Amino acid sequence: MTAKKLLILPGDGIGQEVMVQVRRIIDWMGKKRNISFDITEGLIGGSAYDVHGTPLADETLADAMSADAVLLGAVGGPKWDDLPFDKKPERGLLKIRKEMGLFANLRPATVFDALVDASTLKADVVQGLDIMIVRELTGGLYFGQPRGIETLPNGERKGVNTLTYTTSEIQRIGRAAFDLARKRNKKLCSVDKANVLECTVLWREEMIKLQQTEYQDVELTHMYVDNAAMQLVRNPKQFDVMVTENMFGDILSDCAAMLTGSLGMLPSASLGAADANGNRKALYEPVHGSAPDIQGKDIANPLATILSFSMCLRYSFNMDAEADMIENAVKAVLKGGLRTADIMAPGKAKVSTSVMGESIIREL
Amino acid sequence: MTAKKLLILPGDGIGQEVMVQVRRIIDWMGKKRNISFDITEGLIGGSAYDVHGTPLADETLADAMSADAVLLGAVGGPKWDDLPFDKKPERGLLKIRKEMGLFANLRPATVFDALVDASTLKADVVQGLDIMIVRELTGGLYFGQPRGIETLPNGERKGVNTLTYTTSEIQRIGRAAFDLARKRNKKLCSVDKANVLECTVLWREEMIKLQQTEYQDVELTHMYVDNAAMQLVRNPKQFDVMVTENMFGDILSDCAAMLTGSLGMLPSASLGAADANGNRKALYEPVHGSAPDIQGKDIANPLATILSFSMCLRYSFNMDAEADMIENAVKAVLKGGLRTADIMAPGKAKVSTSVMGESIIREL
Ligand SMILES: CC(C)[C@H](C(=O)O)[C@@H](O)C(=O)O
Ligand SMILES: CC(C)[C@H](C(=O)O)[C@@H](O)C(=O)O
Repeated sequence: MTAKKLLILPGDGIGQEVMVQVRRIIDWMGKKRNISFDITEGLIGGSAYDVHGTPLADETLADAMSADAVLLGAVGGPKWDDLPFDKKPERGLLKIRKEMGLFANLRPATVFDALVDASTLKADVVQGLDIMIVRELTGGLYFGQPRGIETLPNGERKGVNTLTYTTSEIQRIGRAAFDLARKRNKKLCSVDKANVLECTVLWREEMIKLQQTEYQDVELTHMYVDNAAMQLVRNPKQFDVMVTENMFGDILSDCAAMLTGSLGMLPSASLGAADANGNRKALYEPVHGSAPDIQGKDIANPLATILSFSMCLRYSFNMDAEADMIENAVKAVLKGGLRTADIMAPGKAKVSTSVMGESIIREL
Repeated sequence: MTAKKLLILPGDGIGQEVMVQVRRIIDWMGKKRNISFDITEGLIGGSAYDVHGTPLADETLADAMSADAVLLGAVGGPKWDDLPFDKKPERGLLKIRKEMGLFANLRPATVFDALVDASTLKADVVQGLDIMIVRELTGGLYFGQPRGIETLPNGERKGVNTLTYTTSEIQRIGRAAFDLARKRNKKLCSVDKANVLECTVLWREEMIKLQQTEYQDVELTHMYVDNAAMQLVRNPKQFDVMVTENMFGDILSDCAAMLTGSLGMLPSASLGAADANGNRKALYEPVHGSAPDIQGKDIANPLATILSFSMCLRYSFNMDAEADMIENAVKAVLKGGLRTADIMAPGKAKVSTSVMGESIIREL
């Protein structure tokens, strides 16, 4: 078997230091499991701008296009806040998503038993929570044309962005979500604002058609986005898989992530379409951001990035055994009482980023 | 003093029955406080469609335009789900907001001490919560052109909505929010997605300009909408006044409302621009919807509508004394242990819609 090509993009802020812990796991896999990867490391976001004058250089994008998977840390920070719109760190992230065609963003919101008290919600509301939000990632308001700011004849300025989806864009994200629902509890909730936005009327129509023609074994429900935000707070366990457009998905997945109280624990996957061999382009990244305020202090939680790597092993490399081992190691370490600062609780042992990484290796 | 003109639009679902309880308070004001109103009642939403074939008849809109204030119940229900897009109950609500120019939607999220346990969040996270969300209500994705669904040459369909704001639209909602912040804790958080959407880059620029030129005494902060959804769940008490565009405001205000755990308690006000005499068009409505599933059962919570009426007395009619009386009556009744089904808790007395209304009158 030729080694899988993995592109690692630590990015900005704590991205660097959490990725170091993943590298330790990769080393361990080489030594103990005899699995090696063909690894390239690259720059994205502000750190790419500092070197290349752009948040995503063409070479890096080319590396991403030829990789079997990309593992990303996080982008952004106050250092680059005043850059023009199209140089900002975020543009690098949006560009790599778009160019790689990563239309399906999978964002789990799960509560680890050992961390149920980290939530601001009452334990019975979130215990055992296990939601998967499927967010459309390459369409909608994020990429719609026309966009920009223009000056009107009367001297006023006007800002414009466009929310737009075609039927084929809706169908492919719909299928990704239905396929996932099929592997879980066969319940899919599609979130829209079909009482106000025609674009999401089309969304709803296409979801209904898909269910009727290809996914009759999956139960499809619909919810308006405002109600979905409410229901996530009121009773999140009513949901299994949710599917929604890009902007709604950005908001709802962050809301859902925070229900768990431990953002530092949540991985995500962004997937493209499958090719003839069933391979899909893929990028894995933690849900948390670059947290520049705690950068370099060795206190960031590396577990979300480690779990993103385990998602990568599972979804892109078919290494379920190794993915299971990593996930079990994470659970065991938490059960043993180790906590980074963000998930620290009375009676537990506070550890640094590096000690947390070390403990995972020891557990493995 | 000539009687104030009040248009009452009970709407659909529980709208009718909760409004009956407001009428009792109005009667009480006539008898005990010698205050009478010039009241017209009208139809909106599905019940207007059933009679007029449209969710908002021209006569009703004319009544609204000439009223000193409008009090609305709620619109919508499964009965009208299959109507064409432009006949749906919601169109009536959107049309009255737009035609009356009600660009500033004030949505408080407050936790009554007696109801702190109704929240799914831990008591210490929400106790004393008192946020005001100022949502832009007549622009953005809700009304932007172009909009609709078109068929492309290749047979696919494409849905489009447009997010657009002009500088003057941003300034007027900004001023409304800054004015409110000035009356409260002088802290305003403007929510946008300026790292992705140019339209909200303009939003942020205009908010900054307003602060620098007219509101230097108010502290202005900015937050991305995804982070705002997180922070509302993580630590809602960090906020005082928030201002945001229409669609974000729809989502965030419902999320914030649910933090309180008692949607049946939350009023809202939608205000237009002040005329030369300082009068502004205004519509008051509860945050909850028409709840068709419990319609006619005499179990709906009338307090949100009663509190909307008290907001009306305060903001439109300068009747602060009466508004205070109503709000104190609500607090007293809750303290006395009466609860409608939606806010019922162990050890409290469960009462019907009508008994709740009666108890408020008795307390008054
Ligand atoms: C950084 C930003 C552009 C990005 C987004 O809005 O998609 C982030 O919030 C996310 O959710 O991955
Ligand atoms: C009913 C609907 C059109 C409305 C809106 O989206 O504005 C409602 O959700 C609200 O928030 O008042």
